[in-house]
Amino acid sequence: MYAELAIDCARETDRIAAFISDFVARRGADGIVLGLSGGIDSAVVASLSARALPPERVTALLLPERDSSPESVEDAKLLAEQLRIPYQVRDIAPALEALGCYRTRASGIVRLQRLARGAVRLLPGAARKGYLASLRGGAGREFQEFVAFYRMKHRVRLVALCREAEERNLVVASCANRTEFETGFFVRYGDDSGDLAPIRHLYKTQIFELGSHLRIPETILNKEPSPDLFARIKDEEILGMTYARLDGVLFAVARGLSDDRIALEAGVDEPAVRYVQEILRLSQTLRDPPASLPSRKFP
Amino acid sequence: MYAELAIDCARETDRIAAFISDFVARRGADGIVLGLSGGIDSAVVASLSARALPPERVTALLLPERDSSPESVEDAKLLAEQLRIPYQVRDIAPALEALGCYRTRASGIVRLQRLARGAVRLLPGAARKGYLASLRGGAGREFQEFVAFYRMKHRVRLVALCREAEERNLVVASCANRTEFETGFFVRYGDDSGDLAPIRHLYKTQIFELGSHLRIPETILNKEPSPDLFARIKDEEILGMTYARLDGVLFAVARGLSDDRIALEAGVDEPAVRYVQEILRLSQTLRDPPASLPSRKFP
Repeated sequence: MYAELAIDCARETDRIAAFISDFVARRGADGIVLGLSGGIDSAVVASLSARALPPERVTALLLPERDSSPESVEDAKLLAEQLRIPYQVRDIAPALEALGCYRTRASGIVRLQRLARGAVRLLPGAARKGYLASLRGGAGREFQEFVAFYRMKHRVRLVALCREAEERNLVVASCANRTEFETGFFVRYGDDSGDLAPIRHLYKTQIFELGSHLRIPETILNKEPSPDLFARIKDEEILGMTYARLDGVLFAVARGLSDDRIALEAGVDEPAVRYVQEILRLSQTLRDPPASLPSRKFP
Repeated sequence: MYAELAIDCARETDRIAAFISDFVARRGADGIVLGLSGGIDSAVVASLSARALPPERVTALLLPERDSSPESVEDAKLLAEQLRIPYQVRDIAPALEALGCYRTRASGIVRLQRLARGAVRLLPGAARKGYLASLRGGAGREFQEFVAFYRMKHRVRLVALCREAEERNLVVASCANRTEFETGFFVRYGDDSGDLAPIRHLYKTQIFELGSHLRIPETILNKEPSPDLFARIKDEEILGMTYARLDGVLFAVARGLSDDRIALEAGVDEPAVRYVQEILRLSQTLRDPPASLPSRKFP
């Protein structure tokens, strides 16, 4: 990990826990709900929430679908039990089925690949190219169906989270982190959305550090981050570099350094810096609110 | 209509059409998709889109569910045919069913009321009270289930629109208007969301004016705006005053006038002004992005 990004985990834990409990109190809410995926980000948010509030006021929804790996669900359950937070497993496959999610070619390919238990692998570089294409859009019908297929799952999860929150007067936590947010590695109106985003100011490497401090189970801590998507593909393959390097680049970009200084500080070559700058640029539309016109003559 | 809010419809039409076609071109998109509800807002956006782009590049999705009125679907079809834009009717009831939307008490009440063909009416003032309660949240399980039930439908529509857009390289239009946006009369991550919001700078009364200029069918123009929700309830009953008055108040608020001046200009009493101010205040959280912490020591 990039040394300057080291955080004081005890202080950061207190700061985020205070943020969560203040937010819930200010909203007059009865608690918080989040989607627990079995990955590090939602595990850290769940753990911080269980420190911020009485654990019974934290609700975890486990929202697997046809293509989710069974291990993810087991890891999420284990964590919820360890934190003593109530959880519910709700299979969202029937809703996705009803929406036609599983009737595309993309779905057929993913299903076959799951049945082949990872025997299908992408060519090196294909994931990264695909990521750029997904940000650009318009990469041909077959690829776009794949993008839509993946994103729809996250959006249906948001529908389930919002509903739970509204029925029970809870706030929805988004588990998005700063690395994802800046690189567009999220689903708009999906995992980026909610009432509060308790770890969005933290880079992914900082979240691992915090997760270790919070004693997140080893199975979750040691898992390579993955969108649980296709061909056992890992986040770092999609993003095209390790999180340690990516966070170093993002941190240098945030300080406004020139591309050659960024490369030097983050220990990457200049094409890698240009690639990250390209991602930052292409993903801007995902962070923008819907475009609208200014009022003519009215304030 | 409040005289100062009168717009030059021909110029406004050109301005919005240019905004839409520029936006689609800049994104490198192949067209635009919107949900056509049978109401005035989506009718105006469809009509403007069909002027901005070749009509075949405008896709209308009609997304009825169990409780939608059949007339709404017919009105939407009629408009799409008049504009010569392709449309598809997709029943979202099976997806809502799979998500458990129709298994709540709220759903049962709405269904009975539909079967009674509007014989059930709310007491005067109940709709307005309910609206304030929906903005405040935490109004008891039964009422909250009703809020969740209603909002879920709009969110599932957004899932369908985003998917269509992603598969076919289109941009998603939100049909939200300025009156709705400022008063919180929208569903977060539902009808407020999309890539562009072509009429969000216009008050509802201005949209009626524009709709008339655009020769939107009379059945749509003359319909009293309604969320197509419960007991034939109308927007104006929920909002607690006519759109003409509400827009007058909002316009005066936007110019920073004092409450007594606002009442005078908009022709309402001061309690009505305070009511609108309360709505503006309560709905702010619906417009805010998810709350997050600033980075400590990092830019």
